[in-house]
Amino acid sequence: MAVLVVGSTAFDTVETPYGAREDCLGGSSTYFGLAAALFTEVRLVSVVGEDFPESSRKLLADRGMRLEGLEVQPGKTFRWSGKYSADMNSRETLDVQLNTFGDFRPVIPASFRETPYLFLANSSPVTQLSVLEQIQRPTFAVADTMDLWINTEREALDRLLSVVDGLILNDEEVKMLTGETNLIRAGRRIIELGPKLAIVKKGEHGAFLFSNHFQYALPAYPSDSVVDPTGAGDSFAGGFMGFLAECDSVSLWNMKRAVAYGTVTASLTVEGFGVESLVAANREAVERRFKDLMQFVSV
Amino acid sequence: MAVLVVGSTAFDTVETPYGAREDCLGGSSTYFGLAAALFTEVRLVSVVGEDFPESSRKLLADRGMRLEGLEVQPGKTFRWSGKYSADMNSRETLDVQLNTFGDFRPVIPASFRETPYLFLANSSPVTQLSVLEQIQRPTFAVADTMDLWINTEREALDRLLSVVDGLILNDEEVKMLTGETNLIRAGRRIIELGPKLAIVKKGEHGAFLFSNHFQYALPAYPSDSVVDPTGAGDSFAGGFMGFLAECDSVSLWNMKRAVAYGTVTASLTVEGFGVESLVAANREAVERRFKDLMQFVSV
Repeated sequence: MAVLVVGSTAFDTVETPYGAREDCLGGSSTYFGLAAALFTEVRLVSVVGEDFPESSRKLLADRGMRLEGLEVQPGKTFRWSGKYSADMNSRETLDVQLNTFGDFRPVIPASFRETPYLFLANSSPVTQLSVLEQIQRPTFAVADTMDLWINTEREALDRLLSVVDGLILNDEEVKMLTGETNLIRAGRRIIELGPKLAIVKKGEHGAFLFSNHFQYALPAYPSDSVVDPTGAGDSFAGGFMGFLAECDSVSLWNMKRAVAYGTVTASLTVEGFGVESLVAANREAVERRFKDLMQFVSV
Repeated sequence: MAVLVVGSTAFDTVETPYGAREDCLGGSSTYFGLAAALFTEVRLVSVVGEDFPESSRKLLADRGMRLEGLEVQPGKTFRWSGKYSADMNSRETLDVQLNTFGDFRPVIPASFRETPYLFLANSSPVTQLSVLEQIQRPTFAVADTMDLWINTEREALDRLLSVVDGLILNDEEVKMLTGETNLIRAGRRIIELGPKLAIVKKGEHGAFLFSNHFQYALPAYPSDSVVDPTGAGDSFAGGFMGFLAECDSVSLWNMKRAVAYGTVTASLTVEGFGVESLVAANREAVERRFKDLMQFVSV
């Protein structure tokens, strides 16, 4: 089955302890899409400016992404610039130019409206709800969110939570959203707010999965060469959703394996600057890492 | 088989977001001993002052600890006082009175000198080396250490690392000791320094195990009620060593299971103030949690 992603496309300028890069292709939908495309057909809905080069478009298409929903608007593509701390556990945003992404009102092409798997990358919950209204009953819809929307658009976010199947967020965000300081209680509370599934990303410490029926924890892939954490979360979501869409099953067994595949695609991303390692990977590399990861965590 | 622990006995005064307690029985050898005693015979070498009450002595003995090595010296028992942050991920030491522990020169009773499993709780590496010299070729000796010794007694610590079988330390300490910011590289580097085994404790994020032959990661037990993290690390070590001593096997398979048992005993400790939850537990409770934990992490 195919997976539809609605999110940003950007050019990122990053500095980490391992080096710096200017204007790397990035954005939530790019990282998600390239990770998910390792598993299945990805349908992209995003916006870029007139400066978006043919080479970037070709890169996405060559990896198996369908681009009918990639709008080109007058002006420039979204740009972000940031610098990571020495341990890479925090980052400072140096510059944000929303450009064409600032007025993004996603329109889902008719050919995409029956896509069964849907990922609403981080954006205003109002925008995320507008996408859901355009989609014909997806099998499995998952949303990402962030502190900004928790603090400023709580009402719309609560409405979103009542209609999506799953929510992906990080450990700080889940505590903020639920007011719980204990991560286990916080994860369970999300389920009371609506979603059947909550995934809490903990970066180098792995991920938790919560549902009514079970809890699951998986450590991060034991990477000894993290050079740029940008896009790790969206790459995780891409591996997770891509694998579920490929299997077309959201069984308990598949959910857990999907967390592992998300962990693998995130690990590929952080081992290179921007999308370079993710683009260089293939399904075989994913399977090798999946096996390594299973060995790393098996008792 | 029996396990010997050499470390501190203390009275702790703690404040956490869930309450405060004065003069709780604590110290590294107490937490370690009570956790290990859930599995096997524990032999204690420590020091207390004349103020150490019969009730505390009885509590340790009733849990199956042999106390021939518990010295009573003129003066008072070690006292520590601290306050935890709101998220309990950091703590401030408010007061330390080393008292009798300040001059502790451990003497191993003759009846303890052939104990096959040995845990050297956190103290100066010079003191830890003096203990090793008194023990008849232990089957498996593991040491804990801390930032203070890494910074001030590096030479003695390096000598210690060349003679112990295993080292247990936390994520900050392993980075400090090796100069590596990547935890996977840091863990591997410990093995190059001597020990066959390195265990890196990550608190709420679980633990890593490193050896020449394999790496293993286990998330923490999904506790929804952490009230006092004091003693978690030593309780982890107690469950880990207690289980290995009980099986009298340090095979790969047992090592991994021992990490899980350490995770379980640490989770018991943090769910009550001081040692109250650990003391209230029995082997059956440990097995129940072990099964829960296996379910929590199994794909």
